[in-house]
Amino acid sequence: MSSAVHSTEEYDMDIRSLSSSHRHPQDAPYVHKVGLPPKQNLFKEFKATVKETFFADDPLRSFKDQPRSKKFILGLQAIFPILEWGRSYSFAKFRGDLIAGLTIASLCIPQDIGYAKLANLDPQYGLYTSFVPPLIYAFMGSSRDIAIGPVAVVSLLLGTLLQSEIADPVANAAEYRRLAFTATFFAGITQVTLGFLRLGFLIDFLSHAAIVGFMGGAAITIALQQLKGFLGIKKFTKKTDVVSVMHSVFASANHGWNWQTIVIGVSLLSFLLFAKYIGKKNKKLFWVPAVGPLISVILSTFFVFITRADKDGVQIVKHIEKGINPPSVNQIYFSGDHLLKGVRIGIVAAMIALTEAIAIGRTFAAMKDYQLDGNKEMVALGTMNIVGSMTSCYVATGSFSRSAVNFMSGCQTAVSNIVMSIVVFLTLQFITPLFKYTPNAVLSAIIISAVIGLVDFDAAYLIWKIDKFDFVACMGAFFGVVFASVEIGLLIAVSISFFKLLLQVTRPRTAILGKLPRTAVYRNILQYPEATKVPGVLIVRVDSAIYFSNSNYIKERILRWLIDEEELVNKSSQPKIQFLIVEMSPVTDIDTSGIHALEELYRSLQKREIQLILANPGPVVIDKLHASDFAQLIGEDKIFLTVANAVAACSPKLVEEV
Amino acid sequence: MSSAVHSTEEYDMDIRSLSSSHRHPQDAPYVHKVGLPPKQNLFKEFKATVKETFFADDPLRSFKDQPRSKKFILGLQAIFPILEWGRSYSFAKFRGDLIAGLTIASLCIPQDIGYAKLANLDPQYGLYTSFVPPLIYAFMGSSRDIAIGPVAVVSLLLGTLLQSEIADPVANAAEYRRLAFTATFFAGITQVTLGFLRLGFLIDFLSHAAIVGFMGGAAITIALQQLKGFLGIKKFTKKTDVVSVMHSVFASANHGWNWQTIVIGVSLLSFLLFAKYIGKKNKKLFWVPAVGPLISVILSTFFVFITRADKDGVQIVKHIEKGINPPSVNQIYFSGDHLLKGVRIGIVAAMIALTEAIAIGRTFAAMKDYQLDGNKEMVALGTMNIVGSMTSCYVATGSFSRSAVNFMSGCQTAVSNIVMSIVVFLTLQFITPLFKYTPNAVLSAIIISAVIGLVDFDAAYLIWKIDKFDFVACMGAFFGVVFASVEIGLLIAVSISFFKLLLQVTRPRTAILGKLPRTAVYRNILQYPEATKVPGVLIVRVDSAIYFSNSNYIKERILRWLIDEEELVNKSSQPKIQFLIVEMSPVTDIDTSGIHALEELYRSLQKREIQLILANPGPVVIDKLHASDFAQLIGEDKIFLTVANAVAACSPKLVEEV
Repeated sequence: MSSAVHSTEEYDMDIRSLSSSHRHPQDAPYVHKVGLPPKQNLFKEFKATVKETFFADDPLRSFKDQPRSKKFILGLQAIFPILEWGRSYSFAKFRGDLIAGLTIASLCIPQDIGYAKLANLDPQYGLYTSFVPPLIYAFMGSSRDIAIGPVAVVSLLLGTLLQSEIADPVANAAEYRRLAFTATFFAGITQVTLGFLRLGFLIDFLSHAAIVGFMGGAAITIALQQLKGFLGIKKFTKKTDVVSVMHSVFASANHGWNWQTIVIGVSLLSFLLFAKYIGKKNKKLFWVPAVGPLISVILSTFFVFITRADKDGVQIVKHIEKGINPPSVNQIYFSGDHLLKGVRIGIVAAMIALTEAIAIGRTFAAMKDYQLDGNKEMVALGTMNIVGSMTSCYVATGSFSRSAVNFMSGCQTAVSNIVMSIVVFLTLQFITPLFKYTPNAVLSAIIISAVIGLVDFDAAYLIWKIDKFDFVACMGAFFGVVFASVEIGLLIAVSISFFKLLLQVTRPRTAILGKLPRTAVYRNILQYPEATKVPGVLIVRVDSAIYFSNSNYIKERILRWLIDEEELVNKSSQPKIQFLIVEMSPVTDIDTSGIHALEELYRSLQKREIQLILANPGPVVIDKLHASDFAQLIGEDKIFLTVANAVAACSPKLVEEV
Repeated sequence: MSSAVHSTEEYDMDIRSLSSSHRHPQDAPYVHKVGLPPKQNLFKEFKATVKETFFADDPLRSFKDQPRSKKFILGLQAIFPILEWGRSYSFAKFRGDLIAGLTIASLCIPQDIGYAKLANLDPQYGLYTSFVPPLIYAFMGSSRDIAIGPVAVVSLLLGTLLQSEIADPVANAAEYRRLAFTATFFAGITQVTLGFLRLGFLIDFLSHAAIVGFMGGAAITIALQQLKGFLGIKKFTKKTDVVSVMHSVFASANHGWNWQTIVIGVSLLSFLLFAKYIGKKNKKLFWVPAVGPLISVILSTFFVFITRADKDGVQIVKHIEKGINPPSVNQIYFSGDHLLKGVRIGIVAAMIALTEAIAIGRTFAAMKDYQLDGNKEMVALGTMNIVGSMTSCYVATGSFSRSAVNFMSGCQTAVSNIVMSIVVFLTLQFITPLFKYTPNAVLSAIIISAVIGLVDFDAAYLIWKIDKFDFVACMGAFFGVVFASVEIGLLIAVSISFFKLLLQVTRPRTAILGKLPRTAVYRNILQYPEATKVPGVLIVRVDSAIYFSNSNYIKERILRWLIDEEELVNKSSQPKIQFLIVEMSPVTDIDTSGIHALEELYRSLQKREIQLILANPGPVVIDKLHASDFAQLIGEDKIFLTVANAVAACSPKLVEEV
């Protein structure tokens, strides 16, 4: 190694003496060596990789250098953040939480009843899911703004998946319910496991574009499902795709629609949409759309009770079981055929639920500028679903619409979830019988007005503007959900996202660099048309780590740049290409296939009498170039700190020969 | 847009006037604008992406600007390269090809008989596979050095896969054979399809490290399988893992071993290994190991014939069908249960066969410096397998050992394959009966000495030196094959390779930059310990495209760098961090999730009163920053061409305030 250092130093001297006679002195002000980072030992390297992969957020940071008792308290606080923020809780904060909690409770009660139907469960199960999970989350979660409970998309997904296993949720209600609890249990287990193993980054593989498309498609599907209650149709398809649903709707147009139901539905939907419009126009009136659903439930229930419209075919809720969640531990399948089905459905539901909750949590955390530990959140969400599955709840997660209301109502901490939970408890205990005459049409109207916000045209347009490939993923997910099923939409979204990642590592970009006038800076000549090529030198930048998946492509692409350039040069009788400089700044890593490709490139260039020169290899790359003896092969004096230095070293030689 | 340009220009003026009063004038010599590339239309962009993905090698380059008749000839030549190189074929070249062809023929005949056994087929099927496919390849292939025929690894793989479908290849010989032809047919279809759809890059997903491990494991497995013939064991396991095989070997130690067989086997193996050693020591004697197998076959056959050792339990070949390949079109399953099995096996065999052939082709093409079109090669290899499946051949590909001999014997073109094919034809027609007394032990010895070269310790050591993660993939594949099965080894290899790619796009590297003394260059302070941080400024480089899979990580990582730095700064009472410069040179692309992450980063920084500054975004990125209005959000004057420019713009302000 010492001889290598020596030769590089000699070379430096050489360059400095050359540069004095050079035309552009600023091109080679001072040639710095390429740094070879201190050799790391294997264990350290391994530890660093594991740390960045699984503990990127350094969760144990606060535990450092603390006495053992303090560590114990910190550990408890890490699991139950309420112990931390609870100590500084004040009456002022409680005022905010109380108002927010009451507001989201008024919103969640009618939504819960409707969402339970999407999951093919009786209405009380929706309310159960708004009672236990929010309580658990309040103790373990670290988001201050999320509103926990059943949500439309997960309810639909769960309903679809469960129905594909148990075809008739009415005839086999008990079995269906048991499978639902089993799926919820394993959804919780999945979430806790992901969080505990710090595999939270897996949910990042669902791209933003795919989520926008999936959510939009799910919203349309859910809205279409509501046509059943909205039009008072009795015979309705069990499929969710738009073709089957529309067929159902029109097939029953002559005899199956109920005009009284339609009148109730249309007028309430108009009311709700108008309330939404008011809330949007004037941010101070945000509570109008928030309490709209409850008001419409009260009004329509009263109306049906007075007119006894249910005798004219207006479908009503009829019955909601009174009392709080019964235990359901003994209903979970821990063996047999249904176990595997429950696990499979649970995993899918868990991922979608996580995606939604984490997206919400991050959005509001960014708005109020606090940190959210995704993995800790997963443990909290998973625990609440495990406990939920034992208390007759189905999969709960953070709701987009209610979290936004929570935020705008001025919630301060997760106490607003506790307030909501208490209101739901009181509802279950005392007022469920009052829902008897609530028409299904009002629930449909509430669901439609809630999910309509999930169709995000602005986001889709922005995606179109920014990245066409993302837009394809978005539309693929959207149309997959609308025309096939939620599962297929999800599959399309994930596949397209993965394909994009693979494309990135298979076909990285390369660019020809030129010198920007009056600088020593070399940039892509397509981006900077004013940049000029250096005669006799071809400068190529490789824009990716060189791995087995792209090493051949990169080698061949560089050779093709060279052939193109040589053709150009021949036509215009410029000096022949004698140097190929590969700018390696963006090459963050290289593997054995990559080294082979460089060796092949070097040999091909040797045959053409062109000198290969590398500029600015990073720490990992330079380390590997030395480990593989490639640096020795091309000569250590052919590796430069910057393109400008490399060009300075080539140019005088070119000048001599021309 | 014009106003934006205007403001940037104004800013430039500003900087230049500032820089005159600056301490280091070389830090800001001339501030160049960040180039916004000319707006491309959507169709052009799409076309460019498709071209780089599928036509990266520009196969139609030579067709440009040619008259139609010329295009037709060029097209024919593209499909049948023999029409191109055949025109300049000469007697001098033929001499080389003749010698090379005879040498590889002498090597392939005994190997073929042995390899057919690995695939559980009768010996003549190995010879058939060395007759038709090389002929087809000679007309369509573009490699000059590859030697086509059956190979050990593919034979083993095919044998294992077929046996998992048809348990007893002896009892159901006809059915087994038909499935083998079906698999070969669909292997050919797969290869042609991949080549035709220009999906050749898919085989790049098997990393070099994984191939080294897989080949090594397969070689060990094949060698262990030979213990049956080598020791003369009659009852032998059908599994291929080392535990089962060793159990079989030792269980039969008392009564199943045949000492005469062992004597023949050991002495011939010693002879073959010695021949190999001679060939390695003295490159001129390369023909010694090449003709070794044929000599040992002749000697051992003669010996058994004289001594009638077969009566003492030495197993012999007994019978090889005389005559050339019978047609087998009508034996391929085109319907029923076996069709699907054949397709599945065919696809796996096709990929491994391609991997081997393309790796060989590329290696020798690089040595002789000619270009090889991977996709065209696939069409050639696929066609030869389709024709092969109709003429009683199983999957053929390029053989590592024979191609090396071919190369060293001085082959010039694919004519050496034709010569070999003719020799095999003569063998099939006239001398197969002579193989009657050939002992199986000699075939085992030949196979062991052939596959031993596939265990590449040097390559494994190099992988260990260069990349520990690659080494894990390599060992995973190796032990998977040795201890489980070829399929599981393959699965492990592919999974680990993919995991590595995903890791790259999920956890990209980031680095803190410092200024190198006496330059305007900013580099990773871990690589260049002499680089110094600029007071009040934190410079972070992001080493990857910012996509949905890593956008959150990158945002959080940058904030963590900031927190770490602020802690340091507080301790040492240095000036507070006021600027965060993100060096974006390696950020080749950004998607909507990435833009969101940047927006969140910007907001978090705003709350801390830190200014976000971007340096050197590439063409795609700057385009998307504008499309998403993020450039307007942070201010276009916060985007600089280089880190040096950005620092120059920050520093005077810092100076004012301190």
